[in-house]
Amino acid sequence: MARIVQKFGGTSVGDVERIRKVADRVRRTRDEGHEVVVVVSARSGVTNELISRAKALNPNPNEREMDLLLAVGEQETIALTTMALHSLGIPAVSRTGAQAGILTDPAHTRARILEISGGDIDQQLKNGSVVIVAGFQGANVDGQTTTLGRGGSDLSAIAIAAALNADLCQIYTDVEGVFTADPRIVPDARKLDEIAYEEMLELASSGSKVMQTRAVKFAQKYGVRFEVRSSFNDKPGTIVKEEVVSMEDVAVSGVALDRNQVKIVISDIPDRPGTAARIFQALSEEGVLVDMIVQNLGREGRANLTFTVPEDDAFRAENAVKALKEDFPEAQISTYDRIAKLSAVGVGMRSHTGVAGKLFRALAEKKINVQMISTSEIKISVVIGIEDAEEAVRTLHAAFGLAEDSSKE
Amino acid sequence: MARIVQKFGGTSVGDVERIRKVADRVRRTRDEGHEVVVVVSARSGVTNELISRAKALNPNPNEREMDLLLAVGEQETIALTTMALHSLGIPAVSRTGAQAGILTDPAHTRARILEISGGDIDQQLKNGSVVIVAGFQGANVDGQTTTLGRGGSDLSAIAIAAALNADLCQIYTDVEGVFTADPRIVPDARKLDEIAYEEMLELASSGSKVMQTRAVKFAQKYGVRFEVRSSFNDKPGTIVKEEVVSMEDVAVSGVALDRNQVKIVISDIPDRPGTAARIFQALSEEGVLVDMIVQNLGREGRANLTFTVPEDDAFRAENAVKALKEDFPEAQISTYDRIAKLSAVGVGMRSHTGVAGKLFRALAEKKINVQMISTSEIKISVVIGIEDAEEAVRTLHAAFGLAEDSSKE
Repeated sequence: MARIVQKFGGTSVGDVERIRKVADRVRRTRDEGHEVVVVVSARSGVTNELISRAKALNPNPNEREMDLLLAVGEQETIALTTMALHSLGIPAVSRTGAQAGILTDPAHTRARILEISGGDIDQQLKNGSVVIVAGFQGANVDGQTTTLGRGGSDLSAIAIAAALNADLCQIYTDVEGVFTADPRIVPDARKLDEIAYEEMLELASSGSKVMQTRAVKFAQKYGVRFEVRSSFNDKPGTIVKEEVVSMEDVAVSGVALDRNQVKIVISDIPDRPGTAARIFQALSEEGVLVDMIVQNLGREGRANLTFTVPEDDAFRAENAVKALKEDFPEAQISTYDRIAKLSAVGVGMRSHTGVAGKLFRALAEKKINVQMISTSEIKISVVIGIEDAEEAVRTLHAAFGLAEDSSKE
Repeated sequence: MARIVQKFGGTSVGDVERIRKVADRVRRTRDEGHEVVVVVSARSGVTNELISRAKALNPNPNEREMDLLLAVGEQETIALTTMALHSLGIPAVSRTGAQAGILTDPAHTRARILEISGGDIDQQLKNGSVVIVAGFQGANVDGQTTTLGRGGSDLSAIAIAAALNADLCQIYTDVEGVFTADPRIVPDARKLDEIAYEEMLELASSGSKVMQTRAVKFAQKYGVRFEVRSSFNDKPGTIVKEEVVSMEDVAVSGVALDRNQVKIVISDIPDRPGTAARIFQALSEEGVLVDMIVQNLGREGRANLTFTVPEDDAFRAENAVKALKEDFPEAQISTYDRIAKLSAVGVGMRSHTGVAGKLFRALAEKKINVQMISTSEIKISVVIGIEDAEEAVRTLHAAFGLAEDSSKE
């Protein structure tokens, strides 16, 4: 008998029929003799609907009220999912975030989990009940409802799995797992059987949409092994876990593409200490997330600074830089949005040499120009023109032999 | 400065535009210098939508889960209404039933209020905030969400008004107040400026749809003066309050019609003690609400029993009576659904004589046949054929001079 947390996102509980399917899957898991905790999101669309009503009434809604409003979505799905289980004759009970003892800090709409007591969930499981918990929500020390922000339901599931010492946490989603590349771009992309937390994190921050980094980081910190799998079929998904030695046999585990970045070039700034610091300070104050950075020398003691930011931050980034005009009167600012960031990720890079060389050779053979380069211990990222993006992904996927199943069993 | 509780039903908060109007009305009340507590229902339609989803998943949903589900509707409207007030620059804070300290018994989906602490509402009002409270819901001693059943939001408002020693409780609805008769039937029906609790109760149980008797009974018990008025305009409504002597100047305050009753006749039952008791015991066990009862002698020591029940209870009532076949083998059961119950109500009946005579004379002049009669201290009800119903209402309305404003100021 294992203790399993199963998390279902908004699409998986999108209507009565889908909720019935969730209940059926929980039934099958329980029939195999397991204890099951179910974490559900709001029906897809509900959260956006609530937000749009709120914004119509108040463009800048109070965050405490917003949380009380948003918590409604999951409160509905836990009750409905519990009823669906009852109709299958399965003892089940729902718990809101507060009832599940999910204690958060007071930061409404983006609260951080401080502690999970689990409430009476452990007891309910021992009594043979399935427990259905509202994802995305918790309560602060004053008992006020809080929400966890984007990716909050995944985080709830993983945190509950940690608190309850679950054997496995299954994240049911609309993809079958983590792939070596986006299958829409690379037809022979392959689902990975397993992947290390760090690789998952690098993929997530490189454009893979599977999961928010936040939940993955939490899983890594508390050693929660989890599986990303499809809610539409019964195929095993991808297990995300601590790195094991065998993972290093593969240099590159996956290739990711991020088309939502913008490149900003500031030319003709003084090449002296503190210039870059001044600029990045200004960007940081505006809340702009700077990703890749390259600085190079220009003419006569002047320098150029190139960096990328998410598309959504581009406008604020430009304004922040323009505000420094006084300090850098000669600086020119140019923005390029027709770029893409291409990344190759793999914990095997630590022990394999020649990965970068192979990558640049493969791109050069296809005459794909590389505009920027950045590397981490387990990732190489390059900025290329958006027109080359899909070909570049296919090129790297083939160059690193990702289509063949090279993983060791 | 007065302390005012304003309750808005589902139609009044039916969409963003209507919620904005509610906020505006609250603003005007506050601008007059009053402390305001707002009690809101769920958006109209939401509760039925939630119930239909629940029933689709489970024809017999668990009542604890049902309450958690239904509480969602009001949780949404308190948050949205609060945001709307904020956008007008008015300090406001929302409170769920539990946060408002509405303690109920554990009977999920039909809980009774045990006590209202008010939570921190008093303090919030003193600090200048408007407080928006979720109607229809409370929490039991275990902190589980409960709902109050039909008419629950009116009850919440009146109970909160009692707990907070409010000066007035305004029930905003889609009618302008309590009328001397249904204006759709009697064009010159007149809105009453005031009415006694008891009259309101008799009207409610006689087919008037304005309010459930439950909330009125609570108001009477705790002496909460309340006003029924329209959320669509600014006209004063009808004040419902304890009886005052001047009210007795009018013999009849209003005429009500109930077309949703069914008449059941059981003929040829033994005319001996205990027969009626046996029958009504059986009906009571089936949860059938019996309204009017007439027993009369038939041939040779046998009797006929005639009674009315709400349409919804008719099927169960027939079954309950049929189950007694063994005890009363010769009994015949007939059901008549083409009837209406017509009632004249007024606290003035206590001191006025001749009301019944006037009523029967008026109906007789129109050749309207009376099938059953029952009276209370402040009400006379008759059962008539449904084809005579509307003419009968107009006849009594005119006979008792209700169109002219005969109330003493």
